[in-house]
Amino acid sequence: MSAAKDLARFVVSASPSEKARGVMAQSLYDWMACGMAGASEPVARIMRAQAMADGGTAQATLFGGGHVPARAAALANGTVSHALDYDDTHFAHIGHLSVGVLPAAMACEPETGAAVLDAACIGFEVATRVGLWLGRAHYQAGFHQTATAGAFGATAAVARLRGLDVGQVAHALGLAATRAAGLKSQFGTMGKPMNAGLAAECGVICADLAGRGFVSNPEALDGPQGFGPTHAGEAQAMAWDGLGDIWKMAEVSHKLHACCHGLHAMIEALSALDASPERVERVEIATHPRWLSVCNQPAPDTGLGAKFSYAHVAGMVLHGWNTADIGNFSDTCAQDAALVAFRDKVCVRADDGLTETASRVTLILADGGRLEGHHDLMAAQDPAQKWQALRRKGRALIGAPEVQLWDAVQAGKAPDLDALSELMLGQVEL
Amino acid sequence: MSAAKDLARFVVSASPSEKARGVMAQSLYDWMACGMAGASEPVARIMRAQAMADGGTAQATLFGGGHVPARAAALANGTVSHALDYDDTHFAHIGHLSVGVLPAAMACEPETGAAVLDAACIGFEVATRVGLWLGRAHYQAGFHQTATAGAFGATAAVARLRGLDVGQVAHALGLAATRAAGLKSQFGTMGKPMNAGLAAECGVICADLAGRGFVSNPEALDGPQGFGPTHAGEAQAMAWDGLGDIWKMAEVSHKLHACCHGLHAMIEALSALDASPERVERVEIATHPRWLSVCNQPAPDTGLGAKFSYAHVAGMVLHGWNTADIGNFSDTCAQDAALVAFRDKVCVRADDGLTETASRVTLILADGGRLEGHHDLMAAQDPAQKWQALRRKGRALIGAPEVQLWDAVQAGKAPDLDALSELMLGQVEL
Repeated sequence: MSAAKDLARFVVSASPSEKARGVMAQSLYDWMACGMAGASEPVARIMRAQAMADGGTAQATLFGGGHVPARAAALANGTVSHALDYDDTHFAHIGHLSVGVLPAAMACEPETGAAVLDAACIGFEVATRVGLWLGRAHYQAGFHQTATAGAFGATAAVARLRGLDVGQVAHALGLAATRAAGLKSQFGTMGKPMNAGLAAECGVICADLAGRGFVSNPEALDGPQGFGPTHAGEAQAMAWDGLGDIWKMAEVSHKLHACCHGLHAMIEALSALDASPERVERVEIATHPRWLSVCNQPAPDTGLGAKFSYAHVAGMVLHGWNTADIGNFSDTCAQDAALVAFRDKVCVRADDGLTETASRVTLILADGGRLEGHHDLMAAQDPAQKWQALRRKGRALIGAPEVQLWDAVQAGKAPDLDALSELMLGQVEL
Repeated sequence: MSAAKDLARFVVSASPSEKARGVMAQSLYDWMACGMAGASEPVARIMRAQAMADGGTAQATLFGGGHVPARAAALANGTVSHALDYDDTHFAHIGHLSVGVLPAAMACEPETGAAVLDAACIGFEVATRVGLWLGRAHYQAGFHQTATAGAFGATAAVARLRGLDVGQVAHALGLAATRAAGLKSQFGTMGKPMNAGLAAECGVICADLAGRGFVSNPEALDGPQGFGPTHAGEAQAMAWDGLGDIWKMAEVSHKLHACCHGLHAMIEALSALDASPERVERVEIATHPRWLSVCNQPAPDTGLGAKFSYAHVAGMVLHGWNTADIGNFSDTCAQDAALVAFRDKVCVRADDGLTETASRVTLILADGGRLEGHHDLMAAQDPAQKWQALRRKGRALIGAPEVQLWDAVQAGKAPDLDALSELMLGQVEL
């Protein structure tokens, strides 16, 4: 098949499932909280200053204040919302979905909140499918799916919102194929969040030009010397299976703790146990072997190091530190005497019977008792519970305005776009 | 070596040779003529309409009218000036230099014409070296050096004009590494000229963000999983030899005829002979074997076909048709009775003793005489002769305003930026 043609038809005619819309509302909430909290980061100030200096038609709102053309807002907001690296992840897509797609969808003057949810579902789905189609080989070669697959997702979302026809969508996606870019070698620099901005910007510009009659090669995604073949894509045909019926984007995962993803299952398993740290003699943690070389620092002395330490974060959970609060991963926390002392009680071992998303914990208590817990991040979660966890994260990220954010997203009903725009403006001084 | 670091030092401190500056003036003139002539193409109207709809600070002039931010002008003007595909080529770089670099340099409010010439020389040189370093493998894999290597050249030019320091230039080039993109699979669509625009846009945005303190991976061009390694780059180390001393950009080639490059040596060789078509019994053309499968259509009946026909174009030259005039490659010309009849007199044969840039022609005359000619496009050309040929092309492309263009570029002295800006505005109606 020509994936491009099927994707174009999907963009024009797809109707997201209720589950997809519900997940999308959670991603919108989560993305807003990340963007609002990221708006005072250094990279955010740079992006905003550049966008404001260029100026132009006030089509869209910038996180942190200002109104600029849709393209400029997409670039800046994509970057800003990924600045904390605390936004959602889709493991099959191998990247972050919201920061590529939502800045584009939100920037192009959508008429209703319902339209945004639908377009964003479609954008998420296209990004997920393209990411899966490019596969792990693309990622291993050095490409950043958040940016590359994300560009097609953003294009799809804007194309849907702008009401392009099937031919125009195909040209928009074909144009995205020659513009999409983003390398993992930027990780650890401001270039990483910028990659998300590139995806969002690409979406706005390609859809808008196609809407004006721009003619590209509509098979430039998967045709000869198209984006996939030139960018180490695996061309996994199964990536397109069930397009329109199955919403793979609904498996998007929201990061609920401000540390390495390898620690999250352990945090959830420990949090479910009721034990004050004084009662605990020993903590035994079993995890997938892969994580031992990623996030098992035994004695970190910085906040950054603490984000990669089972021993330290286990102590944080049991001592009541809020791991959803990015501010808690500080040098002060890493050097906290009680937590440092507690590390000696923690024992981590690999268990290849566990998946990468699961962890098992055992507390050996001073009174001889034992408490056991297990958590798999992939386990189906009740939406209400998920919302509770997201709101805890939201409060930790943005404080009091979380209540307005919650109201604006309206949990599954149509989001209030004016209220979201007000929240984006925020109070950050340039 | 880390090429990125050496390139950054080069950008800040290089001083172009007089020869480089002279060639640059020719490229500037040629680029202006191509952009002015391209401003009424459909893709030009689309790009201009989009830029004007976004609006913003009036930093730069659009071909065809309007003032917009530098980034927007770079994207639009890069696309517009490549719309006719009649701009300069650098065979070692494997792409077009001016359309990636000059729109960026001209857009960022340069203070003097001399500063533009220097910055553009530096941008051309960086693009040429990066293109050579990426090599033919990069091109064969499907990447379009005009866009990819061009992005680094544009970044270098803007970085020089903005006065960035070495560290900032390195960050700008590192950022370009994650943004540079452009596929050959767009050839034959509006996506091809857009690729040039992408390069120019990339240059403005990366240099400007670096000037504001943006931190990228400064080794993302040639470091691990950098642009070269991820994009089928050959990493030809000799590409960097003599950087700062040897100006490889000075070998840029200007297209003087509005047809396939494979015909140009033949046209030059024939033009030097003095023979009216009535006197000619037979035309023998010898050319490099590669061209026989490219531009040897025996009986084209469209203007496009005529661009790829030795038999037809030989007749055009001898009958006095101006091959510099893009309008002459029309269906009318392809079907002209005298030219169609003349094709029978033309005989083309491969000669693997000739290089790809050379041709030998022999005219057998009715009176039994013979005229012989030979031309190699790579042969050193007297700058004054080259200017004559360029001005002939300029007149064919833009008509009367060519005189002002010639005055504005001032042939080797510093160009008059205000006059160039006036010419860019032009008279094209949106």
